[in-house]
Amino acid sequence: MANGREVPSTLEWRVHAADGTVEILVQESGTRRRLFRRIHGLVVAFLIKLWTFFIKAWNIGVNDPRKFIHCLKVGTALSLVSLFYYMRTLYQGVGGNAMWAVMTVVVVFEYSIGATLYKCVNRATGTLLAGSLGFGVHWIAIQCGENIQPIILEISVFLLAAAATFSRFIPTVKARFDYGAMVFILTFCLVSISGYRVDQLFGMAHHRLLTVALGASICIITSMLVCPIWAGQELHTLINRNLEKLSESLDGCVTDFFADKDVINVSNGYPNKMNQAYKCVLNSKGSEESMANFARWEPAHGDFKFRHPWKQYLKVGAAIRSCAYCIETLNGCINSDIRAPETLKKHLKDMCVKLSSYSSNVIKELAIIMKTMTKSPSIHISIGQMNVAVHELQDALKNVPNQVVVQILQASNDGMKGETTNTRPLLEILPLATVASLLVELAARIEVIVKEVDQLADQAEFSLASNSRSKASQPIA
Amino acid sequence: MANGREVPSTLEWRVHAADGTVEILVQESGTRRRLFRRIHGLVVAFLIKLWTFFIKAWNIGVNDPRKFIHCLKVGTALSLVSLFYYMRTLYQGVGGNAMWAVMTVVVVFEYSIGATLYKCVNRATGTLLAGSLGFGVHWIAIQCGENIQPIILEISVFLLAAAATFSRFIPTVKARFDYGAMVFILTFCLVSISGYRVDQLFGMAHHRLLTVALGASICIITSMLVCPIWAGQELHTLINRNLEKLSESLDGCVTDFFADKDVINVSNGYPNKMNQAYKCVLNSKGSEESMANFARWEPAHGDFKFRHPWKQYLKVGAAIRSCAYCIETLNGCINSDIRAPETLKKHLKDMCVKLSSYSSNVIKELAIIMKTMTKSPSIHISIGQMNVAVHELQDALKNVPNQVVVQILQASNDGMKGETTNTRPLLEILPLATVASLLVELAARIEVIVKEVDQLADQAEFSLASNSRSKASQPIA
Repeated sequence: MANGREVPSTLEWRVHAADGTVEILVQESGTRRRLFRRIHGLVVAFLIKLWTFFIKAWNIGVNDPRKFIHCLKVGTALSLVSLFYYMRTLYQGVGGNAMWAVMTVVVVFEYSIGATLYKCVNRATGTLLAGSLGFGVHWIAIQCGENIQPIILEISVFLLAAAATFSRFIPTVKARFDYGAMVFILTFCLVSISGYRVDQLFGMAHHRLLTVALGASICIITSMLVCPIWAGQELHTLINRNLEKLSESLDGCVTDFFADKDVINVSNGYPNKMNQAYKCVLNSKGSEESMANFARWEPAHGDFKFRHPWKQYLKVGAAIRSCAYCIETLNGCINSDIRAPETLKKHLKDMCVKLSSYSSNVIKELAIIMKTMTKSPSIHISIGQMNVAVHELQDALKNVPNQVVVQILQASNDGMKGETTNTRPLLEILPLATVASLLVELAARIEVIVKEVDQLADQAEFSLASNSRSKASQPIA
Repeated sequence: MANGREVPSTLEWRVHAADGTVEILVQESGTRRRLFRRIHGLVVAFLIKLWTFFIKAWNIGVNDPRKFIHCLKVGTALSLVSLFYYMRTLYQGVGGNAMWAVMTVVVVFEYSIGATLYKCVNRATGTLLAGSLGFGVHWIAIQCGENIQPIILEISVFLLAAAATFSRFIPTVKARFDYGAMVFILTFCLVSISGYRVDQLFGMAHHRLLTVALGASICIITSMLVCPIWAGQELHTLINRNLEKLSESLDGCVTDFFADKDVINVSNGYPNKMNQAYKCVLNSKGSEESMANFARWEPAHGDFKFRHPWKQYLKVGAAIRSCAYCIETLNGCINSDIRAPETLKKHLKDMCVKLSSYSSNVIKELAIIMKTMTKSPSIHISIGQMNVAVHELQDALKNVPNQVVVQILQASNDGMKGETTNTRPLLEILPLATVASLLVELAARIEVIVKEVDQLADQAEFSLASNSRSKASQPIA
């Protein structure tokens, strides 16, 4: 610009030839370039998406390395099964049915040992039942002659398949034998249909059972020996963690409510995150139930005996959830706009914080009882403290109107200001009253958890804490 | 006794022989009899248990006859598939792979069409992907020579099985492709392992795909033509029913709270049963999510287009559940022992009942909007009424202390009774205040449902109610 030369508006390539001439390379049509750019953009976007997906997936594994280990276990089990296929000598034994071993491993190998055992037992029972029934029906059909044979088989397939399908709608069957019912239908159909063709039915069944047993035992051994994941232990940990989350959320909620609003905003949302911990508890019913279902198939492991009262865990879980509902509502009150006057807030604050911290203490002690599986006599003291705090809060609430009255009477004595200094309409103290009321309700619900944990401790025969043998005669929790 | 004859203490058999002699049959030993009785008792108990089980199961079907129909459909599909096996001409076509058709029907046929399609698409995709990958790996292994072949195959099985297993832990994959991942592992193992043995691999794959396609199409045709059950329709109905249950419970709760306690006891627990309706809503998250997952696989049906906003249903469901948590807490307050004094109760009763009935009205209108899939301008009126009721209740609460003060002032004017007639400590009115506060909170949460249903109506392009075309410009519910 300074030397007055024309500057091209777009970039250009100039080729300086040896003879001194300058050739300007005309750029290719803009459409092509734009197309290229768009494709390039799409590819980059796709790669970024893929990368974030991988990062996410990787983090899932890093957060719970047992998931990585589970994948390696499945890989190992499948490699082991396919080894049987490659080794000639073994191949003679299991014949062309080796695919049943592979199929068994793929279908039966689950994350927890309970789930794997559930599937193995269901598969075995379903196969045996259906197999023998299939043979029976097949035998009857043969006795009836070749013409009626397909009709009998068709009818039996129709009836038994319909009946087994229906059984899967029944809750108790669904919970314990859903997979078995499916295997029953499958096996019955295969046996009764292929029975029409295959002559060496018994031989086939024999080989097939062998391979299925092989696959199932590889699954069970791998899942039990390498970094075992017990559904029962998982359930136990889940309940324990839910208790901890509950106490965390309770502390967070009440602290938030009585805290200076500005302080909370400054603290970068941290208290809010703590308050949200209870949300996992709200929706844990499904996983609790499936874990309890799987746990009942597991043998004794760790501190759990074979007939550990897994059902009682569901009751404890339900009691915990009932508290979580209460905290959910409490959380809603905290965000309400109407604020109580400072003097009243101060008056009730101590009582509410005291009650909530004692309640939270009881929950924490319950978590410790669950974690250590030892009855703790000190929980009686905590419950007592909680109940005292409930009474103190109720007393404080009883005194509120007296104070209001005293203030107003004083005001009316000072002249006609009685109606103007009416600073405590019920509406203003409503959020405070509601929080107090919910805390009292929560204390009642916590006592239900205590009762259920108490029963669990009795049923599972929790030992007494070593530092309190003298109190052994006490009924725990 | 009357004739003085000796009466035997136990029953006995006398045989009067032809010659006039009487032979008394000595009873068999008591142990045997007791054993027989015990076995008899056990058998009877077992039969009674079996009978009650059958009655229960039968009632499940009677309450929802579609479950019976589903069973008949499964039976029919399996009979159809086995027909292919019996008809000689068809048998030539599909060969010994007919079992794959049976297996496909048993595994793929689900209660709702969405679930069936999900499994079909997953099975097809998983099989094709794994099949082609398996062939590729097999080809590479062959190029590497016979010695390295098994090693390459083993490593590929290990790596791919582990990777596919891990993918099942990722929430998005779990929700949409869980079954596909399992089928992928299964097929890849079968193809790469059996590829080592079977020479006509391509021929086998071809036959197998044909039979699987046959089984899948029989499933899809049967489930779509005979009394179809759409997951989308089910989800829509579930949300609708949850709204109705919510309004029912709300009405029941508030009626109970303000009702005469004795009347409730007399009425045989009826109000309690109505109050419990919300409990189904608390735990419906799991079924809502699985239905929404299945619904996205379904083609257009009824009023639902192919890309119906099923995800938005989950948001509506979550908003409904948040109200249900509130009602759960409300229900807890109703059973609290502390009762508000009658005069105050009367003062607030009208407002509370009014607010709850208006709130319940809004929920009912939302249910109608969902049911008819038409935007209703009249819901604005209902929301307005609800908000007015909220303000009225808040005004009523504002006036409470004034009345208290007036009464107390009157009392103190009458002499020194000021402190003894202090009949309204905050503790006594606490349950009432809490119920009022929760009703206000509930109204706020109902507005969230309105917002979510509003968005759903926009996304799903609900039509306007015919009687309100003039208000078409309004933003609806």
